[in-house]
Amino acid sequence: MKVAFVMGSDSDLPVVEKGVKTVKDFGVEVEVRVISAHRTPYAAEEFARDAEKNGIGVIIAAAGKAAHLGGVIAAFTTLPVIGLPIKSSTMDGLDSLLSMVQMPPGIPVATVAIDGAENAGILAVQMLALSSPELKEKLALHKKNMAEKVAEKDAAVSARFQ
Amino acid sequence: MKVAFVMGSDSDLPVVEKGVKTVKDFGVEVEVRVISAHRTPYAAEEFARDAEKNGIGVIIAAAGKAAHLGGVIAAFTTLPVIGLPIKSSTMDGLDSLLSMVQMPPGIPVATVAIDGAENAGILAVQMLALSSPELKEKLALHKKNMAEKVAEKDAAVSARFQ
Amino acid sequence: MKVAFVMGSDSDLPVVEKGVKTVKDFGVEVEVRVISAHRTPYAAEEFARDAEKNGIGVIIAAAGKAAHLGGVIAAFTTLPVIGLPIKSSTMDGLDSLLSMVQMPPGIPVATVAIDGAENAGILAVQMLALSSPELKEKLALHKKNMAEKVAEKDAAVSARFQ
Amino acid sequence: MKVAFVMGSDSDLPVVEKGVKTVKDFGVEVEVRVISAHRTPYAAEEFARDAEKNGIGVIIAAAGKAAHLGGVIAAFTTLPVIGLPIKSSTMDGLDSLLSMVQMPPGIPVATVAIDGAENAGILAVQMLALSSPELKEKLALHKKNMAEKVAEKDAAVSARFQ
Amino acid sequence: MKVAFVMGSDSDLPVVEKGVKTVKDFGVEVEVRVISAHRTPYAAEEFARDAEKNGIGVIIAAAGKAAHLGGVIAAFTTLPVIGLPIKSSTMDGLDSLLSMVQMPPGIPVATVAIDGAENAGILAVQMLALSSPELKEKLALHKKNMAEKVAEKDAAVSARFQ
Amino acid sequence: MKVAFVMGSDSDLPVVEKGVKTVKDFGVEVEVRVISAHRTPYAAEEFARDAEKNGIGVIIAAAGKAAHLGGVIAAFTTLPVIGLPIKSSTMDGLDSLLSMVQMPPGIPVATVAIDGAENAGILAVQMLALSSPELKEKLALHKKNMAEKVAEKDAAVSARFQ
Amino acid sequence: MKVAFVMGSDSDLPVVEKGVKTVKDFGVEVEVRVISAHRTPYAAEEFARDAEKNGIGVIIAAAGKAAHLGGVIAAFTTLPVIGLPIKSSTMDGLDSLLSMVQMPPGIPVATVAIDGAENAGILAVQMLALSSPELKEKLALHKKNMAEKVAEKDAAVSARFQ
Amino acid sequence: MKVAFVMGSDSDLPVVEKGVKTVKDFGVEVEVRVISAHRTPYAAEEFARDAEKNGIGVIIAAAGKAAHLGGVIAAFTTLPVIGLPIKSSTMDGLDSLLSMVQMPPGIPVATVAIDGAENAGILAVQMLALSSPELKEKLALHKKNMAEKVAEKDAAVSARFQ
Repeated sequence: MKVAFVMGSDSDLPVVEKGVKTVKDFGVEVEVRVISAHRTPYAAEEFARDAEKNGIGVIIAAAGKAAHLGGVIAAFTTLPVIGLPIKSSTMDGLDSLLSMVQMPPGIPVATVAIDGAENAGILAVQMLALSSPELKEKLALHKKNMAEKVAEKDAAVSARFQ
Repeated sequence: MKVAFVMGSDSDLPVVEKGVKTVKDFGVEVEVRVISAHRTPYAAEEFARDAEKNGIGVIIAAAGKAAHLGGVIAAFTTLPVIGLPIKSSTMDGLDSLLSMVQMPPGIPVATVAIDGAENAGILAVQMLALSSPELKEKLALHKKNMAEKVAEKDAAVSARFQ
Repeated sequence: MKVAFVMGSDSDLPVVEKGVKTVKDFGVEVEVRVISAHRTPYAAEEFARDAEKNGIGVIIAAAGKAAHLGGVIAAFTTLPVIGLPIKSSTMDGLDSLLSMVQMPPGIPVATVAIDGAENAGILAVQMLALSSPELKEKLALHKKNMAEKVAEKDAAVSARFQ
Repeated sequence: MKVAFVMGSDSDLPVVEKGVKTVKDFGVEVEVRVISAHRTPYAAEEFARDAEKNGIGVIIAAAGKAAHLGGVIAAFTTLPVIGLPIKSSTMDGLDSLLSMVQMPPGIPVATVAIDGAENAGILAVQMLALSSPELKEKLALHKKNMAEKVAEKDAAVSARFQ
Repeated sequence: MKVAFVMGSDSDLPVVEKGVKTVKDFGVEVEVRVISAHRTPYAAEEFARDAEKNGIGVIIAAAGKAAHLGGVIAAFTTLPVIGLPIKSSTMDGLDSLLSMVQMPPGIPVATVAIDGAENAGILAVQMLALSSPELKEKLALHKKNMAEKVAEKDAAVSARFQ
Repeated sequence: MKVAFVMGSDSDLPVVEKGVKTVKDFGVEVEVRVISAHRTPYAAEEFARDAEKNGIGVIIAAAGKAAHLGGVIAAFTTLPVIGLPIKSSTMDGLDSLLSMVQMPPGIPVATVAIDGAENAGILAVQMLALSSPELKEKLALHKKNMAEKVAEKDAAVSARFQ
Repeated sequence: MKVAFVMGSDSDLPVVEKGVKTVKDFGVEVEVRVISAHRTPYAAEEFARDAEKNGIGVIIAAAGKAAHLGGVIAAFTTLPVIGLPIKSSTMDGLDSLLSMVQMPPGIPVATVAIDGAENAGILAVQMLALSSPELKEKLALHKKNMAEKVAEKDAAVSARFQ
Repeated sequence: MKVAFVMGSDSDLPVVEKGVKTVKDFGVEVEVRVISAHRTPYAAEEFARDAEKNGIGVIIAAAGKAAHLGGVIAAFTTLPVIGLPIKSSTMDGLDSLLSMVQMPPGIPVATVAIDGAENAGILAVQMLALSSPELKEKLALHKKNMAEKVAEKDAAVSARFQ
């Protein structure tokens, strides 16, 4: 199963790319799309409706401002949809966050931190790992690597202040 | 031309009704619908696409929380869409407001105050009045009546404190 | 009918200009004014009162901070007034947004996104299009063009990640 | 010189009354008005323009939501205008506060706490006291009385927990 | 695989129960726990570390105020963790939401709406459905049922206003 | 050493009392005062300056709205001052919180949660425990008791859903 | 009577200076001080207590973050105190604004916009003008000049877009 | 007794260093660590559990975004924990502040201003000073020095404007 990244505008790409890299690093195939919930609503509908049969397992929807993309996609599929709120030039990302996370009952969007592309990627892999022992192992390794990196920094910093 | 009221949930009706009454008081025909952007996305699309040929001139979309309804409808029509953010049980309406008003470039939603159903109605009538001298006259009269009511209260209150 | 842009200060012009260009691109005549609700209140009153007889159909009021301009103009006319909140050096535009959108019952201001000049322009055209088949056609074309631009970007981005 | 209380709606009266009482307790004459910046703009203008010659020294403007009243009045007079933001049913008073306090350069509104009617009254008296030794004395006495009341409560509470 | 609900305090149960019911309605087994990230940190660690071998597939962590529970659990497992922010007596749920959703890179928490227990449940089922055609079918049916309920309300409301 | 509770108004007592009880339960002596930073500034100064010689070790300052009490007391003493922000009728406690926690460099106020009286008390005891093995033991016991209470609730709830 | 500017830190001077210039332009004498409510509380008390006998009529208190300066000064004088909230490196000025404006009953601080030094100055002059026909005239002239400047810009901008 | 600084990421070091310097200037020994509540949870637990026996008296926990570090450490120790919220690239520090300060009953985190490292250091010293007359004297001197520095600036600024 692939992880699909859908962004509302190609200006979101610099943030989204970090998530794409994260998912690829786990050896999971990706599909990356620019689809606007408002300017290309038919594309959004078509993408969401056909996602499953196109081999997509999890969808990451990245958008800023009144960020409807996650909700609009979730309306047309039962695949899990991860919302990645993008910070825009006003409101410091609060508008994107609330537009994504405050979904009314029935249609969830699994929201991560503002500009939190890496976490969106890890979350998608965690979902796929539910049926993949291989991915599960990779996630455990990734957790171990993160811990080691922090431990190295800890050693460096605590030495410096001794 | 009719004014259509679309609400995301029938729990929004107590607020929306005030707007319906306002529009009817101007002698304008209304259509009132319950359509969820997320639970009935096909109905939303169909409604929006056919709105114009069904005699609708202005659409008022009322929704709470991650209030995508206005944006989703505006994606499928070029009629003006008025956003009416509904206060829900958390966030005091700020989520609804930002989800509606912060629309990205290309697809506007004309947003009024949180729970501001009466103003949504007046705004719709103002739009229709652009090509209706009769409505224009009624709006002028409405403005005059409002002023008179305030003047009466002013007289009562200022007398009381003299 | 013309679309009038009124801004509270000429420092708002860099944002407002995008809206002016949008409206002109639709072939609609514009009038652009600098009028302060607080420093030139008589000009605001005069402008608003005479707007209709001067051939204005829709008024776009742009202002920052305690952004009263939209409300002050709407007090003197029954034409639809679009509020364009401008982000200033503090509060990230939230003050402008709330000062415009939270209008009390009776006098609506149709508010768009903070710094959302282009959408203010499109909304104005949508209102005028209610009585202009020609504008309606142009709006449909504009919608189509936007969709095509997104589709091109989609093709480019999705190809890049294949 | 009188202190004028102007409120945007008579629903603000329960809050405003506390301020009226405060001012009267200092023996200062009051005038209490209901004037809407949006529904009775001519009354607002007339009131503000004539305030000084009608014996008014300080104006207290109370309003909720997009609370333009203070700014609109200040536009037409050079008398000091005190803004009293009223909490309404949404946004917990933040909209009223920002609409009043964030006035652009040139036209100040002296804003007090949300629903802070008593402080609006005291502030008005402080301004008048600049040229009234009698009021100055009363303010000193008022300060002393407040301190004594707190001291009494302090005695009661600290005794209770000994 | 089971869905585990963990709440920081049994005062969260009235909200959490709706999510439990949702998951059970899909025929998925649940485990419901009261574990405090701060008062029973060892229990949190033990629960999270052993979750997978105890047959848990997805963990829903519900907490209010400084809601660390989701992050603390996610630190000890690679299973997907869903964050359910609970509204408490101050800050209208904003503190819970930000404490959950703004997780730093490496350890995601899939956050749903404030008090959005039902959506937390559906999201968990969507994740499990990735490897369960039976659950996928049930989700499709659930979506269809929701749409039908909205359609019924639409019929009732639109009839009433004709 | 005693723990002193100072509140800006006796209306804060219902919240403060929980903290008083917490401190007393640890066998630590308390002093409870009503002192307003603004209405009784001399009392605030005198209290703070003499606190140490009066046997006070830690000061808990509780206040709402523009909550200056903690900062004002901290200005006159080098004892640790704990800020307890009280939620008032507007702004949901955010004003109290920011007024306390955002102290400029040089004069800290150790702020706890809005209405978090119990935590203010525990924090004070933790400070005193730095030089009291007996209090340290009591704190460990208190921590154990809390954990046991949560464990009991966990047992009850998890049994109920089995 | 003089207008005193008191700032909590000399880092506030770049903002405060604009207010000083405004007041001087009206021919009113100023006194400019750096006094910290927290680091020099005795200086704050002394300044406030002696302000009146030192010929000060109005006090402008500028401070950032937990901005207590206005309230602390107002506690020791009955002169009107104007609060000028300064934007600092975090919270975009909201902390300063709420710390100043939300004063509890009894001790008002007349708050102007964040970084609104010019308006603080004009407000101070308006207060002094209550007993100075000369200042009143200057204020009227200042208002006229502002209107003319806006009118010039209006002419320039509207010409450019014709 | 030492003061320990723990930061969630070494990117927090530029802010934290100011606090380290402050504590060292008082002649108190420090320990500086990089420990992530989420990426190195075992290190956090071990550090917190052993803190006391390692000679640590007070712990300062610095973290940004969903800043759980303070709460996680406080869960495993009864030493006082000071929370230092770090401003990150979104939300202006509000997320860090609320994640730290809004701790639920039982486990306090003594929170200081966003990026307020210096105050975190002074607060830690104040706690240690409860049993150290020498530190108490140094704090008094520090207070005196701060006052003198402000007085010098006051002299310079007030002279400049005379």
